Amino acid sequence: MNTNIDELQSVFDKKIPITQSIKIKVKEFNNNQLELFAPLKENINHVNTAFGGSLYNLAVLTGWGMVYMIQQENNLDGNILIFDSSISYPKPINTDMKAVCDVSLQLEEIKRFVKTYNRKKLSRITLKVNIFDNNSNCGAVFEGTYVLTANNN
Amino acid sequence: MNTNIDELQSVFDKKIPITQSIKIKVKEFNNNQLELFAPLKENINHVNTAFGGSLYNLAVLTGWGMVYMIQQENNLDGNILIFDSSISYPKPINTDMKAVCDVSLQLEEIKRFVKTYNRKKLSRITLKVNIFDNNSNCGAVFEGTYVLTANNN
Repeated sequence: MNTNIDELQSVFDKKIPITQSIKIKVKEFNNNQLELFAPLKENINHVNTAFGGSLYNLAVLTGWGMVYMIQQENNLDGNILIFDSSISYPKPINTDMKAVCDVSLQLEEIKRFVKTYNRKKLSRITLKVNIFDNNSNCGAVFEGTYVLTANNN
Repeated sequence: MNTNIDELQSVFDKKIPITQSIKIKVKEFNNNQLELFAPLKENINHVNTAFGGSLYNLAVLTGWGMVYMIQQENNLDGNILIFDSSISYPKPINTDMKAVCDVSLQLEEIKRFVKTYNRKKLSRITLKVNIFDNNSNCGAVFEGTYVLTANNN
């Protein structure tokens, strides 16, 4: 499991430079759930809470990371791209933050996603990510559709 | 006009540190239209196009900046916060990028937004932002609802 976490962290660090600026860390992966962490300090806004754009970045990367894990586990090639997404901010966050993508209830959907990719080299999946503060209050609710494609465009 | 641009740039630089990491610059404001710029280099992803999270940051800040301009022009106090938003990515961007928020068709709505804030000290407005590459191809379509509130929470 740690190998996967380290690999994902390395992809973020090497391929998506903004993840270093905002100090995103991959924390835990257990097949059905991926957790990422980000500190408040680098992601603060004008009222000393987490900047909405940083919360979006953390969420979109958590979903991206989950698709990456699915890709690794099923030996799929291709590139993962975000297609569209929405986010709402139910409560300001004023501590460090944790993002969680839990796919426990989407296992059949993931099987279909993998099967479609193997057949068409193009597949899409919609994932949810929630972001919590240190007191387990939810500060962001994200839903994004990701495309896995053998084509870059 | 330049004073307003410089003030907005200064708010971004001083209050939202991520804007410096991703090198966002306020380019132009003409009452009805605000333009922000971001370079590709600091905002690149694993397939050498603009990272979806960076496009979101640029878009959410362009909308935020437009609300800031409305606030300045109407002498409103209060803090601007993003409430919810959606973004889609019609085409990958592989050059530097320009974000545009045009409110030409929302002038009555802006009057209501200002009037409501003056009465209730709480008002919201939904703005659209498009992001273009150097060849005027649209790479991101954003819509966000912003709240102006006298209360931080």
